Amino acid sequence: MIPRYSRPRMTAIWSPANRYRIWFEIEALACEALAQQGAIPAESARTIRERGDAAMAAFSDADLARIDAIEAETRHDVIAFLTWLAEKIGPDSRYVHLGMTSSDVLDTCLAVQLVQATDILLEDMDAALEALKRRAYEHKHTVTIGRSHGIHAEPTSFGLKLAGHYAEFARNRQRLEAARKEIAVCAISGAVGTFAHIDPAVEAFVASKLGLAVEPVSTQVIPRDRHAAWFAALALTASAIERLATEVRHLQRSEVREAEEFFHAGQKGSSAMPHKRNPVLSENLTGLARLVRSALTPALEDVALWHERDISHSSVERNICPDASVTLDFALGRLATMMEKLVVYPERMMANVESLGGVVHSGEVLLALARAGMSREDAYRVVQSAAMETWTKLGTEGAKTFRQNLEAQPEVAARIPAPVLDKALDPALHLKAVDGVFERVFTAPASATAANAPKAAKASKS
Amino acid sequence: MIPRYSRPRMTAIWSPANRYRIWFEIEALACEALAQQGAIPAESARTIRERGDAAMAAFSDADLARIDAIEAETRHDVIAFLTWLAEKIGPDSRYVHLGMTSSDVLDTCLAVQLVQATDILLEDMDAALEALKRRAYEHKHTVTIGRSHGIHAEPTSFGLKLAGHYAEFARNRQRLEAARKEIAVCAISGAVGTFAHIDPAVEAFVASKLGLAVEPVSTQVIPRDRHAAWFAALALTASAIERLATEVRHLQRSEVREAEEFFHAGQKGSSAMPHKRNPVLSENLTGLARLVRSALTPALEDVALWHERDISHSSVERNICPDASVTLDFALGRLATMMEKLVVYPERMMANVESLGGVVHSGEVLLALARAGMSREDAYRVVQSAAMETWTKLGTEGAKTFRQNLEAQPEVAARIPAPVLDKALDPALHLKAVDGVFERVFTAPASATAANAPKAAKASKS
Amino acid sequence: MIPRYSRPRMTAIWSPANRYRIWFEIEALACEALAQQGAIPAESARTIRERGDAAMAAFSDADLARIDAIEAETRHDVIAFLTWLAEKIGPDSRYVHLGMTSSDVLDTCLAVQLVQATDILLEDMDAALEALKRRAYEHKHTVTIGRSHGIHAEPTSFGLKLAGHYAEFARNRQRLEAARKEIAVCAISGAVGTFAHIDPAVEAFVASKLGLAVEPVSTQVIPRDRHAAWFAALALTASAIERLATEVRHLQRSEVREAEEFFHAGQKGSSAMPHKRNPVLSENLTGLARLVRSALTPALEDVALWHERDISHSSVERNICPDASVTLDFALGRLATMMEKLVVYPERMMANVESLGGVVHSGEVLLALARAGMSREDAYRVVQSAAMETWTKLGTEGAKTFRQNLEAQPEVAARIPAPVLDKALDPALHLKAVDGVFERVFTAPASATAANAPKAAKASKS
Amino acid sequence: MIPRYSRPRMTAIWSPANRYRIWFEIEALACEALAQQGAIPAESARTIRERGDAAMAAFSDADLARIDAIEAETRHDVIAFLTWLAEKIGPDSRYVHLGMTSSDVLDTCLAVQLVQATDILLEDMDAALEALKRRAYEHKHTVTIGRSHGIHAEPTSFGLKLAGHYAEFARNRQRLEAARKEIAVCAISGAVGTFAHIDPAVEAFVASKLGLAVEPVSTQVIPRDRHAAWFAALALTASAIERLATEVRHLQRSEVREAEEFFHAGQKGSSAMPHKRNPVLSENLTGLARLVRSALTPALEDVALWHERDISHSSVERNICPDASVTLDFALGRLATMMEKLVVYPERMMANVESLGGVVHSGEVLLALARAGMSREDAYRVVQSAAMETWTKLGTEGAKTFRQNLEAQPEVAARIPAPVLDKALDPALHLKAVDGVFERVFTAPASATAANAPKAAKASKS
Repeated sequence: MIPRYSRPRMTAIWSPANRYRIWFEIEALACEALAQQGAIPAESARTIRERGDAAMAAFSDADLARIDAIEAETRHDVIAFLTWLAEKIGPDSRYVHLGMTSSDVLDTCLAVQLVQATDILLEDMDAALEALKRRAYEHKHTVTIGRSHGIHAEPTSFGLKLAGHYAEFARNRQRLEAARKEIAVCAISGAVGTFAHIDPAVEAFVASKLGLAVEPVSTQVIPRDRHAAWFAALALTASAIERLATEVRHLQRSEVREAEEFFHAGQKGSSAMPHKRNPVLSENLTGLARLVRSALTPALEDVALWHERDISHSSVERNICPDASVTLDFALGRLATMMEKLVVYPERMMANVESLGGVVHSGEVLLALARAGMSREDAYRVVQSAAMETWTKLGTEGAKTFRQNLEAQPEVAARIPAPVLDKALDPALHLKAVDGVFERVFTAPASATAANAPKAAKASKS
Repeated sequence: MIPRYSRPRMTAIWSPANRYRIWFEIEALACEALAQQGAIPAESARTIRERGDAAMAAFSDADLARIDAIEAETRHDVIAFLTWLAEKIGPDSRYVHLGMTSSDVLDTCLAVQLVQATDILLEDMDAALEALKRRAYEHKHTVTIGRSHGIHAEPTSFGLKLAGHYAEFARNRQRLEAARKEIAVCAISGAVGTFAHIDPAVEAFVASKLGLAVEPVSTQVIPRDRHAAWFAALALTASAIERLATEVRHLQRSEVREAEEFFHAGQKGSSAMPHKRNPVLSENLTGLARLVRSALTPALEDVALWHERDISHSSVERNICPDASVTLDFALGRLATMMEKLVVYPERMMANVESLGGVVHSGEVLLALARAGMSREDAYRVVQSAAMETWTKLGTEGAKTFRQNLEAQPEVAARIPAPVLDKALDPALHLKAVDGVFERVFTAPASATAANAPKAAKASKS
Repeated sequence: MIPRYSRPRMTAIWSPANRYRIWFEIEALACEALAQQGAIPAESARTIRERGDAAMAAFSDADLARIDAIEAETRHDVIAFLTWLAEKIGPDSRYVHLGMTSSDVLDTCLAVQLVQATDILLEDMDAALEALKRRAYEHKHTVTIGRSHGIHAEPTSFGLKLAGHYAEFARNRQRLEAARKEIAVCAISGAVGTFAHIDPAVEAFVASKLGLAVEPVSTQVIPRDRHAAWFAALALTASAIERLATEVRHLQRSEVREAEEFFHAGQKGSSAMPHKRNPVLSENLTGLARLVRSALTPALEDVALWHERDISHSSVERNICPDASVTLDFALGRLATMMEKLVVYPERMMANVESLGGVVHSGEVLLALARAGMSREDAYRVVQSAAMETWTKLGTEGAKTFRQNLEAQPEVAARIPAPVLDKALDPALHLKAVDGVFERVFTAPASATAANAPKAAKASKS
Repeated sequence: MIPRYSRPRMTAIWSPANRYRIWFEIEALACEALAQQGAIPAESARTIRERGDAAMAAFSDADLARIDAIEAETRHDVIAFLTWLAEKIGPDSRYVHLGMTSSDVLDTCLAVQLVQATDILLEDMDAALEALKRRAYEHKHTVTIGRSHGIHAEPTSFGLKLAGHYAEFARNRQRLEAARKEIAVCAISGAVGTFAHIDPAVEAFVASKLGLAVEPVSTQVIPRDRHAAWFAALALTASAIERLATEVRHLQRSEVREAEEFFHAGQKGSSAMPHKRNPVLSENLTGLARLVRSALTPALEDVALWHERDISHSSVERNICPDASVTLDFALGRLATMMEKLVVYPERMMANVESLGGVVHSGEVLLALARAGMSREDAYRVVQSAAMETWTKLGTEGAKTFRQNLEAQPEVAARIPAPVLDKALDPALHLKAVDGVFERVFTAPASATAANAPKAAKASKS
């Protein structure tokens, strides 16, 4: 996480000020719960709330420095904070943190921060989805070549391409939501999680006030598989970004030129080559995707903490939580803008469709021959030969189109009348299902995209 | 995946015979759908089904060799299979695969195999959960020391430890179910996914017969984020295995000896040291967990295929799909057995609880002093000093217990009467919430474990 | 590792027969060393050698089955082997494995296998290097466009491209050699590595006979950082394969068509689209590279074994050692053939160089203007404007070349006479350093490629 | 990289000021080379050097802000810097960057920074090695139990343990040195690396002045396998840290207590449990190791840049270069201090050796019986039975030691006289080779540790 690839709303979540604010909130809520139970004086809980709120409202760099100074002595961050808080609150501070352990504060705080971060990411997602949807509808019927293996296959529509990316982002939005639930848990269970010194009702109260669920069984810490699951959702989202970025990079290649990132007035593509306009945003997104993904392995290595807990996860999370969320927030924002402004060249797309002399229609011709009674093997041979003849001579003197090469073969001419051949060579054939697919992607209930599998998959016959 | 760490039920899923059986099923179902539409003769669809079923039922090594021989020529596996199938079916074979592309068969088949694999993994999970639950209830009130940082913290129960692992496995079961839905999709959309040559109704028919959902938008292939999400669920499960295995390894350490893997009669721990009984199962599981996790990075790298598809994912999946599922199946089976048979030593657990002279009760004494009006800082100082005195002299001549060192301090004696001290030093204190936690883990609705977070997490005051 | 991506020479290294052969060799050599020391009867060492050699020479599936049966009882692979060996050797077998521990055999054997595997990989490398070198010289002066960001930058030569890949493979060859040294070590130090029961001279003798170095300090096992370093070298090599494969995939794109994988007679690119010729080898190599790399993370996780050793690395290595070496061997072989047979289209390369109307020469024109006294900023503005004008109108009615657009600008015409412009727009300019670079890459002493850095890097002025 | 885990000397390397200083140095040196060639006026080169040096010496936040402002306009960092530099230098600035491309500056600068970073890491290594060596010699003869699988195996010395870690760190030092050579290269070759606009002599001059080697063939960028190799060396070093940290964590466990991290006066181990002294440094190092390793996968993914270069690596490296080097520097520093101050308890070590009633000597008794003529199988059975009897009854009423249980078996008593048994049960047996191993580790020529493998490893008999 570096300023160049950061946005302030997300970095603010990981600021010390936000962390201390949440720590205080957890402590104050616990006191209020204890007061409700009669375990501590209600008056003390009120004092703690009031003076603490005031201290947090006035929180300044001087407070930060004071806490750091105490930590330098105690080598324990929560104790440092509580000591500073006691200085602000006075004698009633003896009721603060009562029966709790540091992890109760740290892990519940991290849950709140991760939920805050996820909520921003979900908004980012919505912006990216919105951009993809708009451009998909805009280019619903823009004919472009579909490519497998980087080789022209058959025509498709540019809108259909974008619909595929939209669907992947929509799945990732669902994964992020699921991941949000995974980490939205509160634990206030004391040392090694036995509630020996604190009533589970305190946990329930704090959880409810913070909008969190209760961790069913904590072992001092909230189990780290929840966090790893969260990073898995981010890694999958990063990979979706990489896939779309890779598409844009391909489309902007000099030989393809079907789309281009917006080029700002005044922008310079290269210090040495004034003609350059490079897809630097999508290349940048490719790199950012690698970064976000790289958090997943250490997060998985964090799961197997020793016994009730060790603290090896802490240094990892202090880095990867801000790094991955800030980077992904930035990347999603950049992606949404890039897609919003992407310059699309429909005429280049059509030129590319036609650039191989029509061989991209070989599949439909193959079927037409089969329908006309030719065996699959014969049809394949005939069509492949016409296609290869076309392809090999492309751009040479006297080169013939795929149609011409087909018509030159008596086996074809005898079987396929010209109107049928017209239709087989018409790109419109490939757009006929676009409406249906758009319907499935954009208007079906969201739940259907991932979750409508019937109970049992089987390979037995019906 | 090697025989040593494989079980036949899972490896069978990845056999060529199972793959070809599913390929044929997809082709036959597609023909039946086409016949329903009137696109091909009903009689031909019947012939295809009957002769194909017969060929698959009689499928032998000779058939495998024949398909391999054709593939050596065509360098294309699906074409090789279809050619072999045509030899079995005769002229009606020209209706097989009509309007489809290889990926329709390959990707839908992989979906079926992954669903089959997941169903076995879910059964494995249930066995592991059952073992954990049984042992958790058995040791619900078996007092043991809770450890943070490997250091004795406070007592807990061994059943509570196991309940924590149960809850993690239960979460992973949910993740596996979600992952099953992710990959349980069918695509029969033809080249670059446009349905140019085949009606979407065929896809719907095949999907329904196979118990799959329809992929809303395929680009010749089913998007690879679905598969990566599946591997993420496996990786998380592997990490849960590692955490439990690490716990067992710790418990069996010579200095701890609180539990031990079952040692078979005739088993030899070491060729050189006859006294050895090693936690080899849990160490093995630790390694297997690393293996399962290692599939995730290549699966994530597979997501960003070029344009409508490239085939770089294929060699990866031919390896990691069998490897990860077979290894995880084996590991879950081994884990369930290991936990079923784990030899637990409650008296050693109690001995360890007491081995530090009682300092593990320092937390409750601290609270008792606070309740008795001492400031947190003073109480901490007093208790830490008694604890360190006990700890440092442990096992030396004239060493005193934590209780004796506490009672020697006038500040303590003056504030805490003996009955209160008795209670603070009683392990029973740490078991009082066990029932409640068991209730949350074992009898709450499954959905509640991960998904009951209210809408908004916030750190603002109530 | 699956047969599809395996070659027999490498898989043989990982066969049980090879492993048992090496195990016996280690045991027999240790006996010979002990006999030299007078620790066991020389006659017994001879009997062990002779009968053991005979047993290994006659080693059959029945022996495998017998060893497996014993292991099923003892649950210890080395003990099972030694028991089988004792059956073959008779009473003198009591001198076998004397003072040794299983790891002495297992780890030294693994070292031998890894060295054998590395030697094959080094030969593979040589074949790949040879192919790259031959093609590089063949196309030393074949003009092609250099691309940064996928955008045409300036001309280069195709041979120069290949020289860059050659240099990367040469570096990886050096890394593999270094990795070979890392793992070519022998440990015969007994339980926890103290030589309590065996003289270090035995280790030295066995090491020397096996062509290995002595592990300076083993802790029962050979430390696993050595193995991780070996996997790092493989992962780097895999990445070189991916880079070259990615280049070929790009060159074969329909829009680029500068080179193509050899297409076999009879080969079918697609079941549905007869016109397809896909870069399936290079896509396959991309996937295989991901697989080889995926072994590195578990290898790194294996390093931190507990205390003197735990056995968590074993299940990992039983998989990743064969998998990674077999896959890399196959990939290197495929890559060498692919590059040997790559079909190169120099005229397409030249056509692509010219396809942007000459804007790829903008850099040299910029310099010419600067040399002619124009300020960098002004020159950049002028040249960028001419380039963008050319680029934007490409292929449209009345489009002008870069040269025409430049000449239309009085500032240019006034400063650069036609002959200077001729030279600036001549691709030959970009080939003038090719000889020098080839000299540096192909004929400089190997050591110079990586290792000729002077002592201190610094940014201070000279 | 966060301040908590950073040290200023390393973070300074990654500051903008250091980067711009190096950029200027490269540009100035290139001008000096060009002046030597007569390509630009010598007077201009002097002016550039003088005014540039002055500007860099006076470099302030205002300059940073100015550069940032220009970059916001041009969206190109090097152009922004050059524009700022031109403002400082005046008209002669038109000779700056002549014939170069941004990557020449960026990649050579990164090489300088990585070399600077490596030099600090090598110093860190030396401090860690020094601490390990000192403690190893201090405890050369401190008897401690060796453990395999966490189970007591046989005695060893604590110094021998540390010698093993020393050797691993020494190997990593060699790997870091090799990695330093890998990245210590300079490229000044212009667009796509053809030297079309700049003479290779400029590159040679700049390289030599900066203490770098010349990159034999750059493609505008320095190939990224070099950087990935560097991150591999860091990842291996991180794993060595994790292994040592894991050892310390185990030794400090409450049940083991053989060593302890230094506990500062005033330090608090737990907010809730005053008795806690936790191995937080080694746990922290475990987490930091995961972080450093996590940079390796994206570094490997950076290798396969498209064609002559794309810029996807840039965002990755802007993060992982500082993050990994700063984190590893911090970790190595923390590790050296931790090992310097580690509190070792030799008497606890000896108590643990004896804690299993002597069964840890089973291996030598087994050999003694074999030497006395008993068959391996019989001896194993007898010794295992005595050991298990001892182990099982440990700590119970009337429990017997291993020696007592052995002597109770007539087969043993008949074969092994008491003095022989005395010797077999004496820990001194396990220290006899310590001197030899120390000699191999600490005084052998450094090159011998990794590199003395003879040419061919083989399993054939001598």
